[in-house]
Amino acid sequence: MKLTKMALLGFGTVGQSVVKGLRGDSFPSLQLTHILNRNIARKRETEAAGYAGPEVVWTEDIADVLDSDVDVVVELIGGSDPAATWIEHALRSGKSVVTANKQLIAYRGPELARLAAAHGVQLLHGAAVAGGVPVIPGMQQGLGGDQVVRVSGILNGTCNYILSRMETGDRYADVLKDAQALGYAEADPTADVGGFDARAKLCILARVAMQAELDPEQVATQSIAEVDAVDFAYARELGSTIRQVSKAQLLEQGMYARVAPMLVPLNSPLAWSHGTQNMVVSTGRMGGDVVFSGHGAGGDATAVAVLSDLLAVAQGSRAVHLAAEPKSVTGDSVAPHYLRFIVNDKPGIVSAISGALAAAGANIDSLLQRKGYPKQRLAFVVTTEPCLNSVIARAVDSTATLDCMIARPLALEMLVVDDKDEPTA
Amino acid sequence: MKLTKMALLGFGTVGQSVVKGLRGDSFPSLQLTHILNRNIARKRETEAAGYAGPEVVWTEDIADVLDSDVDVVVELIGGSDPAATWIEHALRSGKSVVTANKQLIAYRGPELARLAAAHGVQLLHGAAVAGGVPVIPGMQQGLGGDQVVRVSGILNGTCNYILSRMETGDRYADVLKDAQALGYAEADPTADVGGFDARAKLCILARVAMQAELDPEQVATQSIAEVDAVDFAYARELGSTIRQVSKAQLLEQGMYARVAPMLVPLNSPLAWSHGTQNMVVSTGRMGGDVVFSGHGAGGDATAVAVLSDLLAVAQGSRAVHLAAEPKSVTGDSVAPHYLRFIVNDKPGIVSAISGALAAAGANIDSLLQRKGYPKQRLAFVVTTEPCLNSVIARAVDSTATLDCMIARPLALEMLVVDDKDEPTA
Repeated sequence: MKLTKMALLGFGTVGQSVVKGLRGDSFPSLQLTHILNRNIARKRETEAAGYAGPEVVWTEDIADVLDSDVDVVVELIGGSDPAATWIEHALRSGKSVVTANKQLIAYRGPELARLAAAHGVQLLHGAAVAGGVPVIPGMQQGLGGDQVVRVSGILNGTCNYILSRMETGDRYADVLKDAQALGYAEADPTADVGGFDARAKLCILARVAMQAELDPEQVATQSIAEVDAVDFAYARELGSTIRQVSKAQLLEQGMYARVAPMLVPLNSPLAWSHGTQNMVVSTGRMGGDVVFSGHGAGGDATAVAVLSDLLAVAQGSRAVHLAAEPKSVTGDSVAPHYLRFIVNDKPGIVSAISGALAAAGANIDSLLQRKGYPKQRLAFVVTTEPCLNSVIARAVDSTATLDCMIARPLALEMLVVDDKDEPTA
Repeated sequence: MKLTKMALLGFGTVGQSVVKGLRGDSFPSLQLTHILNRNIARKRETEAAGYAGPEVVWTEDIADVLDSDVDVVVELIGGSDPAATWIEHALRSGKSVVTANKQLIAYRGPELARLAAAHGVQLLHGAAVAGGVPVIPGMQQGLGGDQVVRVSGILNGTCNYILSRMETGDRYADVLKDAQALGYAEADPTADVGGFDARAKLCILARVAMQAELDPEQVATQSIAEVDAVDFAYARELGSTIRQVSKAQLLEQGMYARVAPMLVPLNSPLAWSHGTQNMVVSTGRMGGDVVFSGHGAGGDATAVAVLSDLLAVAQGSRAVHLAAEPKSVTGDSVAPHYLRFIVNDKPGIVSAISGALAAAGANIDSLLQRKGYPKQRLAFVVTTEPCLNSVIARAVDSTATLDCMIARPLALEMLVVDDKDEPTA
């Protein structure tokens, strides 16, 4: 058997899990030869270092890796620099690359893939989306025969942890603190709660599933920090819950793509996911909905994706590749919306709000008012008939300026579950 | 671009969907050259025949295909003969084969795969399990890095349709009749309801996910026909529903594998599936649970798997391959059980039954008796502490002979949901 020599860049949580996974004779075709990290002395004291074997070269100098005869470089340091430079060097020197770097693949994936192809090596990034859930390989190898028209996902475990805790009555600020203590959320949680992490993953999925190259900067995001406990109470009355949903859908021209907290009906698969789980629902013209779910983060789950990609490189296996093309992006699509207002209750308020909505072009579908909120800080909800997100944005702007309004109104897109797709046999 | 020429054996539901999927320029690398079927004149009148193109050779003679220069033969006729002979001929003459034939792949897959390898061609069978759900390619390409220790699935859409209708109060006989009228069930439904269809798929999954070659004949089955409306009522009291579950699990020695109606807790993903949906839950040592679900049957969904495999052949792509080894099978594992008795109620019955259970070695965990059943035909339920299925089989045999017993007791394995697996980051 030909041995595939591999170098690990980054010996953090995922890197250590990869080395643990390699121990014993599980992967006789893979040989770990280098581990690179800053402050390597400290890393050598970890438990996982004990599994690395005595022949491994521990180094802080990338030249040791790039000048060696390793066949594959596993990039687990994240960020854009020096990761991008190192990956380019590796590919140019004829080494395949396995990476979990979602931002890099989202922004520069097509260009790096061309570089890999030009040098006859592979660039695999199964770990960049949904960690241990084999959605990228599953789509490449198993859905290439369909025309996927929509991908919706729960792509950020931190947000899912926060929102599924809020679903049971906890407050955003408290849950965020817990998530930070548990290591699920960073000290600065913006990348997660603001939707930027999920946005990168959505762009990668759009490329793999729908052959659409999206510019991540063009994908609209909405933070989950605006969602309040009261919204879960109203969502429940609407037979729904709230999740950070990443959604991309083919339009007649271009593509709708957006990452935002959305109302998810309880009978949607997206409502099944709880805790830090990830889920992707892909909708194909022929095959209908396909659901992938599992643990999207964590060292061990992510290591499964890395090790599976390493096996693919070692075996010289190649996934089906469909050429992608750049596609323009809009955050605007037609959907029903949920609008939550917090007002100082006075006569004429419903009239003022409904007038402002009508002026913006949004038709009210239902008006909900739960008991138990004080008149000076009354929370009530309007759902609209399907209309463009941009119409709703205008409606929010105009109602926000009403005298009675105590907080800026919150608008959430409402997902609609399409239940017609029973197969015919 | 090199054209891959393909022949279709079988122009039924799936074959027609494949041809529909090929229309237009969706797959410029694939060229359909032959369609074989009995009574070809009748087939040429179907709507799908119109998409086949004028250059296609319609034939009833397999020699036309085998003697041609087609690169891939798509076998969609099912059954063991002549499918097996034709597949062997195709492989020997250097043609790749794409098949949806689950029985053939379950019984003879390893041998046919060796034949394909010996002739440098591919044998792909993504459509043999769960139709349009890319569980086989997803596992091959995306879970090779894990050690999968268990696979549980809803692998037969007919049974899932019947049981999820019964869940809402319908009777088995009525639902079966509807399923037959809708084309979900055959006139003789034994292969589906008896578990033989699912058993073949389970053996294929065990091979792909756990590298275990199982003899399908050694896998125990239990028919869903024994399940009654009363069992759903009791299941609900136990926070569960009933599904035909196909389960294979690595033991210290050999493997547990079984297809049977089982009690599924409502918080298990397996309880999410409804209608004719299929679902597979794979449990890995590193990555935990991964769920795949979607439409497992129907022409269009199955055609997605066939077309995806065809693309893989056309691109010369190859999935990761892990060598499988024969494994011995037992239907015996330790689990809690549900036992339903229908008795003519007289004093001393509980004592007699509990005595018989104790003598067999089964410990009672709970005893449930819903109101509203007549004393002469009283249905009540015992759940047991975890014990071997064989212990329960003995308990059923001995209680079946008690005077009070009006029907043979029904025993169902109870699935336990492992909720500990929150990832650590």
